[in-house]
Amino acid sequence: VKFISLLTDFGLNQEYAGVCKAVILSICPSATIVDISHTVTPFDVEEASFMLKNFVMYSPVGVHVAVIDPGVGTGRRGIAVETERGDFLVGPDNGVLMEAARILKWRRAVFLENSKYMVEPVSSSFHGRDVFAPCAAYIVNGVPLKEFGRELDTKDVKTLNLKPNEDERAIYGRVLRIDRFGNIQVNVEADRISPERVRIEIKGNRFVLPYVKTFGEVDPGELLIYRDSDGLLTISQNRGNAAQFLNVEKKADIVLFKK
Amino acid sequence: VKFISLLTDFGLNQEYAGVCKAVILSICPSATIVDISHTVTPFDVEEASFMLKNFVMYSPVGVHVAVIDPGVGTGRRGIAVETERGDFLVGPDNGVLMEAARILKWRRAVFLENSKYMVEPVSSSFHGRDVFAPCAAYIVNGVPLKEFGRELDTKDVKTLNLKPNEDERAIYGRVLRIDRFGNIQVNVEADRISPERVRIEIKGNRFVLPYVKTFGEVDPGELLIYRDSDGLLTISQNRGNAAQFLNVEKKADIVLFKK
Amino acid sequence: VKFISLLTDFGLNQEYAGVCKAVILSICPSATIVDISHTVTPFDVEEASFMLKNFVMYSPVGVHVAVIDPGVGTGRRGIAVETERGDFLVGPDNGVLMEAARILKWRRAVFLENSKYMVEPVSSSFHGRDVFAPCAAYIVNGVPLKEFGRELDTKDVKTLNLKPNEDERAIYGRVLRIDRFGNIQVNVEADRISPERVRIEIKGNRFVLPYVKTFGEVDPGELLIYRDSDGLLTISQNRGNAAQFLNVEKKADIVLFKK
Repeated sequence: VKFISLLTDFGLNQEYAGVCKAVILSICPSATIVDISHTVTPFDVEEASFMLKNFVMYSPVGVHVAVIDPGVGTGRRGIAVETERGDFLVGPDNGVLMEAARILKWRRAVFLENSKYMVEPVSSSFHGRDVFAPCAAYIVNGVPLKEFGRELDTKDVKTLNLKPNEDERAIYGRVLRIDRFGNIQVNVEADRISPERVRIEIKGNRFVLPYVKTFGEVDPGELLIYRDSDGLLTISQNRGNAAQFLNVEKKADIVLFKK
Repeated sequence: VKFISLLTDFGLNQEYAGVCKAVILSICPSATIVDISHTVTPFDVEEASFMLKNFVMYSPVGVHVAVIDPGVGTGRRGIAVETERGDFLVGPDNGVLMEAARILKWRRAVFLENSKYMVEPVSSSFHGRDVFAPCAAYIVNGVPLKEFGRELDTKDVKTLNLKPNEDERAIYGRVLRIDRFGNIQVNVEADRISPERVRIEIKGNRFVLPYVKTFGEVDPGELLIYRDSDGLLTISQNRGNAAQFLNVEKKADIVLFKK
Repeated sequence: VKFISLLTDFGLNQEYAGVCKAVILSICPSATIVDISHTVTPFDVEEASFMLKNFVMYSPVGVHVAVIDPGVGTGRRGIAVETERGDFLVGPDNGVLMEAARILKWRRAVFLENSKYMVEPVSSSFHGRDVFAPCAAYIVNGVPLKEFGRELDTKDVKTLNLKPNEDERAIYGRVLRIDRFGNIQVNVEADRISPERVRIEIKGNRFVLPYVKTFGEVDPGELLIYRDSDGLLTISQNRGNAAQFLNVEKKADIVLFKK
């Protein structure tokens, strides 16, 4: 099966994501394409890198394309990374692919330089259509990686620092994202804290939250903290919207005290 | 053809719906997956049950998955219902599947209990990924229903009451939904009223609306009522937005007088 | 490959787009369906005609369905247009298909009149489901165009005027659309102006904008104009949101002075 997944910040109100699929299916008519999301916060490479990692952990082996690309039209380069499992990660060299590459394990990578595998003329603003989508389609068609350009090394690529800071007193995390139910996901792995009541500080206010396995363990309206389906800490309100209740936005600081 | 449809309230800004598809395609690479919607109002089981029913009436025989699941992580159970037509309905036992089961006719059903057909470890908050998506994929792969768990009876499942009340004077309905054109869909079947001018009450105001076949029968700006494409009554404004004009929200009461 | 693309203003919160796919796959189970967009501005036939044109330029040969249909339920007719490349364009006769037909070149066309190829009973408000989706599916299944209804001529169909006006002093364009990055796309082809500094007037204010190839040629926060990936002029702000900065909406007038 020729499996391709797509993650972009193009939005859904224009034809952009559809055009990328049209390009892929023109080159590889039998591709199976899955949308990861097209409404990543514009230019938010960190958010996208986290989403891509979460996706590939459950995905069939395939080619995964991420086009969150604030540097399009500048000198930033396109890359394709082959993983130990046999996947390929395709996108700009701005760190967006690197969390997925870390999980799936980097085998080799190349720059996307060969215009033979691009839609020409290459525009200065839509490399999703002109560079990354065709690259993905040619890869699933069996074009060897070295055909696309020079090989590169892990130390040549841009990476992101998504980890929280820590000292003996506390872990200094931040809000990774808030979903449409108002759950507040924190960039701290659940294994990092001991599973009991958790003392946190948000916006200068301190709370003690019960660490639970399920929402039903607290009363309706009560706040709680739990290990979420990504293995991270999430703060929620039983039958409520924790983000609204606490007036917390994405990227807000959250301190988790060690005792 | 291995046809699977998906209906959730996950939203489109995260990778959740994509991950469910990744799980399905990992188990059944040749599945054809169709999105019904992923932006159901959060936790709105009634809305989703109605959407699922509307979809299956036009759908090929297949497996239809609905994950609107306010009770995830509590004791609520997952179920799979086989219909007379040969479809399977998969989701939580909270009524979301039951309108579709009523239309397609219940043949048999089981609880989803066998962890062999789940993605383990099963999280407490994302059964779409860990329970319902893999169940759907194994069903289209031919795993017999009885493999998933104990059989259950129609009288064991939760149902919803979506019908309007009625007395000799009037039918007491409510707004089922408002679409992006401002059309106000009411939970009353068009056959229930006589096709002439219709007296209604909304928010204490009374109107007489012409019952028409097409918008063009009234002047621009005029209100009207008609039998919509679901067979229900819908109130619209020709070349306008009826919901804005009448300041009506979802779930608002609407009285239809019998004379 | 049986390739079908869909462009509608149905939105994503209801099951409407999914139902159209269900109808297609009921008739042609092996169809590959691609969404162009389902969140076209309600009733905006011009916007949709432009999106459809942009899509088909990169698309495999197939059947392209556009349902932006303010006239549904009135006397407006459905049509299917065959192109020289072998595509078919399916939708209402309101101009939405004509930009794509112009690019792909009109070969022949018919009215959609034969109820044998509709989902009956045909509703008065959902021809996407009842007329256009089944028509597309029967076409990819090989039903000859003449089976659907009487042939019609290019001079019989409604067209749109999307071109800017011009005199010796200036080109009088308008904002075609604004994307989620705040880029302002103007309905003027980049070839129409000489590539140097461009004098424009927006909302009574005059600017001189550098005509650049890439955003990096100006400082962060500076406005610029460039040839976009559709070959049109787009006004942007490096690392900013030009539409917010200039307080410009869709359809606003933009004058480009010739000197």
